[in-house]
Amino acid sequence: MNNAKSALPKLPYFAEDTSEAVVNSRMGENVNPRLRQVAEVLVKHLHAAVKEIEPTHEEWFAAIKFLTETGQMCNEWRQEYILLSDILGVSMLVDSINHRRPSGATPNTILGPFYVENAPKYELGHNICLDQKGEPLVVRGQVRDIAGRVIEGAKVDVWQTNDDGFYDVQQPGVQPEANLRGVFSTAADGTYWFKSVKPRFYPIPADGPVGKLLLNLGRHPNRAAHLHFIVSAPGYDTVITHIFTPDCPYLEEDAVFGVKQDLVADFKKIDDPIEAEAIGLNEPFWLVDWDFVLAPQKS
Amino acid sequence: MNNAKSALPKLPYFAEDTSEAVVNSRMGENVNPRLRQVAEVLVKHLHAAVKEIEPTHEEWFAAIKFLTETGQMCNEWRQEYILLSDILGVSMLVDSINHRRPSGATPNTILGPFYVENAPKYELGHNICLDQKGEPLVVRGQVRDIAGRVIEGAKVDVWQTNDDGFYDVQQPGVQPEANLRGVFSTAADGTYWFKSVKPRFYPIPADGPVGKLLLNLGRHPNRAAHLHFIVSAPGYDTVITHIFTPDCPYLEEDAVFGVKQDLVADFKKIDDPIEAEAIGLNEPFWLVDWDFVLAPQKS
Repeated sequence: MNNAKSALPKLPYFAEDTSEAVVNSRMGENVNPRLRQVAEVLVKHLHAAVKEIEPTHEEWFAAIKFLTETGQMCNEWRQEYILLSDILGVSMLVDSINHRRPSGATPNTILGPFYVENAPKYELGHNICLDQKGEPLVVRGQVRDIAGRVIEGAKVDVWQTNDDGFYDVQQPGVQPEANLRGVFSTAADGTYWFKSVKPRFYPIPADGPVGKLLLNLGRHPNRAAHLHFIVSAPGYDTVITHIFTPDCPYLEEDAVFGVKQDLVADFKKIDDPIEAEAIGLNEPFWLVDWDFVLAPQKS
Repeated sequence: MNNAKSALPKLPYFAEDTSEAVVNSRMGENVNPRLRQVAEVLVKHLHAAVKEIEPTHEEWFAAIKFLTETGQMCNEWRQEYILLSDILGVSMLVDSINHRRPSGATPNTILGPFYVENAPKYELGHNICLDQKGEPLVVRGQVRDIAGRVIEGAKVDVWQTNDDGFYDVQQPGVQPEANLRGVFSTAADGTYWFKSVKPRFYPIPADGPVGKLLLNLGRHPNRAAHLHFIVSAPGYDTVITHIFTPDCPYLEEDAVFGVKQDLVADFKKIDDPIEAEAIGLNEPFWLVDWDFVLAPQKS
């Protein structure tokens, strides 16, 4: 970004071949330099897209209508423009650009709309599934830094759907409050573990303009089954990430492109009753060994 | 457009460097080919713009908020997304792409929101200014085709602001109904003429998100002063166009980029009382000689 950049020479009259320059040259002298840069890039790509598409007047008006309806679908509980950003891969792209990490560090993925701050803090080994519904799951592992040093007291904040594909906040009165959410703190050797149930895939809200667009694009609205995590420790770059189940039918076609190769876990089925009893379960369970690797905080 | 084009090979997992291909490869097999083409081009340019801008999470959310508010500003009387399209030059670009005409034909420009169908039909020479406010104006000329043949019975539909920069529909009860609107029909020699008043510049609605954006871009909301026309005749491409006054302070910075060089007219001041009396005026007036040239209708 060049703060000293001055406005372009004025090109007064519109013509198809100079359209980008005409529009961008209209900006004033005292525009915020970042806004100037963003506006210039957006106008460049917007005009290039229009010239490539050559929309009819009717197609242009259909676009106006879609953008309007997407805005009007939003309310206190529903953000249709974030959904649009999600299904076009823009949310993941912005997330990736802002979370480029050194090799070996756990990759980021999108936060999503179901995170709730101040979930209950539990001792290691606690079962976050409060209604005993679903296939039992144990997740265990270690939090380290990229140099291999274990991190004691790292915060492991987890949230996930139940066995039916719903978060607690989507089913008040059906699921117990704070079901399938919890905050754990790693032990002196950096380890953590907790009990839960296997999560299920779920659809993003598909009853609005974005759902209709997905349908017209021959796509479905389902997110691949996953557990969400925010893992943090002082001095380290906070990681917002997922663990994906490997057997979900939507693993390779997550509606919001949230899956990264390195975030697909191995879910081992443990049928041995002695192993089950050792961790306080009386039935077969799924076991996931999963370490988180944190990079140093950026200055 | 290639109807036979099949879906791209599936690239399941998101990565920053392949983001465009991952998103576009997700489309189904049986997608409308035009929708496929439009979606592919939009995703390409959208991802390219995001990669060039590298928005922070906060900037991305500011964009989500702007798009949402723009949609929520729309109602039965207000179309904020058309305004956004207008001030970014997109409306003019779409208009230009759809109205490429042979050399010599009158250029098109945007329709705008103030056209009213079925305006009163008048005899040639009628004064469309019903309240006698403003500086008198006479517009006269000929409608021809690009081969130079005069067109009898061509419809010349005109509308404009008053001397204060308002259309009749913006000031019900202040201006007479159908003030400064009228439909004329050319004589056997293709000529038309009518009386009116000199129009004034006016602002597009600037109290919403688009007005705030204009302010932040160091731009003003004013349209250069003009008369609007729709000129049509059977067998010819209908022309939606303007005549601009040459002395408007906003001529070179029309907020919606509607001005084309060939649409700026010469407004001659006639002070001769004999000339004024000859056309039924008792004061000095502005005279515009303006011919419209129609191209054959496209098949």
